[in-house]
Amino acid sequence: MKVNILTLFPDMFTPLTTSMLGRGLEDGKWELNLVNFRDFTSDVHHHVDDTPYGGGAGMVLQIMPIKKALDSLANKGKVIITAPQGKTFNQKMAQEWSKEDNLTFICGHYEGFDQRVYDLADETVSIGDYVLTGGELPTMSMVDATVRLLPGILGNAASPVEESFAHGLLEYPQYTRPEDFEGMKVPAVLTSGNHQKIDEWRHKESLRATYLHRPDLLENYELSSQEKIMLEEIKQEDTNA
Amino acid sequence: MKVNILTLFPDMFTPLTTSMLGRGLEDGKWELNLVNFRDFTSDVHHHVDDTPYGGGAGMVLQIMPIKKALDSLANKGKVIITAPQGKTFNQKMAQEWSKEDNLTFICGHYEGFDQRVYDLADETVSIGDYVLTGGELPTMSMVDATVRLLPGILGNAASPVEESFAHGLLEYPQYTRPEDFEGMKVPAVLTSGNHQKIDEWRHKESLRATYLHRPDLLENYELSSQEKIMLEEIKQEDTNA
Repeated sequence: MKVNILTLFPDMFTPLTTSMLGRGLEDGKWELNLVNFRDFTSDVHHHVDDTPYGGGAGMVLQIMPIKKALDSLANKGKVIITAPQGKTFNQKMAQEWSKEDNLTFICGHYEGFDQRVYDLADETVSIGDYVLTGGELPTMSMVDATVRLLPGILGNAASPVEESFAHGLLEYPQYTRPEDFEGMKVPAVLTSGNHQKIDEWRHKESLRATYLHRPDLLENYELSSQEKIMLEEIKQEDTNA
Repeated sequence: MKVNILTLFPDMFTPLTTSMLGRGLEDGKWELNLVNFRDFTSDVHHHVDDTPYGGGAGMVLQIMPIKKALDSLANKGKVIITAPQGKTFNQKMAQEWSKEDNLTFICGHYEGFDQRVYDLADETVSIGDYVLTGGELPTMSMVDATVRLLPGILGNAASPVEESFAHGLLEYPQYTRPEDFEGMKVPAVLTSGNHQKIDEWRHKESLRATYLHRPDLLENYELSSQEKIMLEEIKQEDTNA
């Protein structure tokens, strides 16, 4: 996969060239093409913004340099832009995007885009209900979520399908040494050596975490008959707690 | 405000030292303290992880180095950790956090924490329903959303209160030069010079964007009598479109 990113701050993107994503780049598992759209301005001062029509505080990013930067790409593939009015990004979108050969992200800045820039994108995506100084951090999060699903990126780490949201439930709790940390102990079942019991415990705790913290996820989740029994026990235990 | 960040990848944090947040750091408007919790390990190989009790793929981040790193801070203030089971981060949380003198973030890694680490935090927060390789990017997004609200960070940029979500509505569309870009024109009202008309248009378009793209935001929004009339017009126009 080749990821193009149009931004005014190409130096910000160290998170994508560090750790596992960075190793993936070195190993040629994916490509990153950072394009500064300031290079596509035609005026001598390389302005990318101008005052808004109709007046008001702040400046607005112009469509021209962004259009030219997009046109310069050999294959832009799906073009994605972040904006509060977009669909909220989620794991399913990351999974769909990870099947693409080319993705292009347009990063805004605190000033906001000329409305017509949104017509250049195939998808407008929101990262959540909060305001950031620019589109760089949301873009990096979306690229991270997408690229880590590509073959060979996570290496020997846990397979992506074992994780939260992939199956529609939150992950079960994990523990490692020490067994007793200042009185906080590891659940006894995990040191029992009984693998069937451990699997059952983990399955139930995954269901419990989802029920207690994200019950909304259960609305779209089809419970097996075993899970229905577990959930009844969890509800009973919650009432007695 | 002083922000402490416990991470295995302090080099990733360039986005917080660039652009407006970077200038804010230079001007002493906020402080950033990056702490590598690998420095708080006691074994010769500086391991921060170990195999999970009960077996399974992957490794689990240990509680010990994180506890020691937290204990080393002069004033940790509110301690925040990212996890899928947390409350979903939003603008209201950013506003609350921006009133704190000290904030400490603990960044996980693709391996996940020992469950007991969550007991060290005051708040467990989710950035959204997607999986990332680590807690660094969500932490940077939360720090960005919070720090930009501090006095003097945005400088002459638009005041934070004018933006999406702050008032509960999406922002109105903005336009700048050129007036006609390849047939895509700026709405005539914005070049009319009639400021009352422009204000009304913007107010209505803000409401329209919210109604069309994020109707859920209107559920918690108290409409003025003027906005009720506007919304009826918008619904009528939407039906006719």
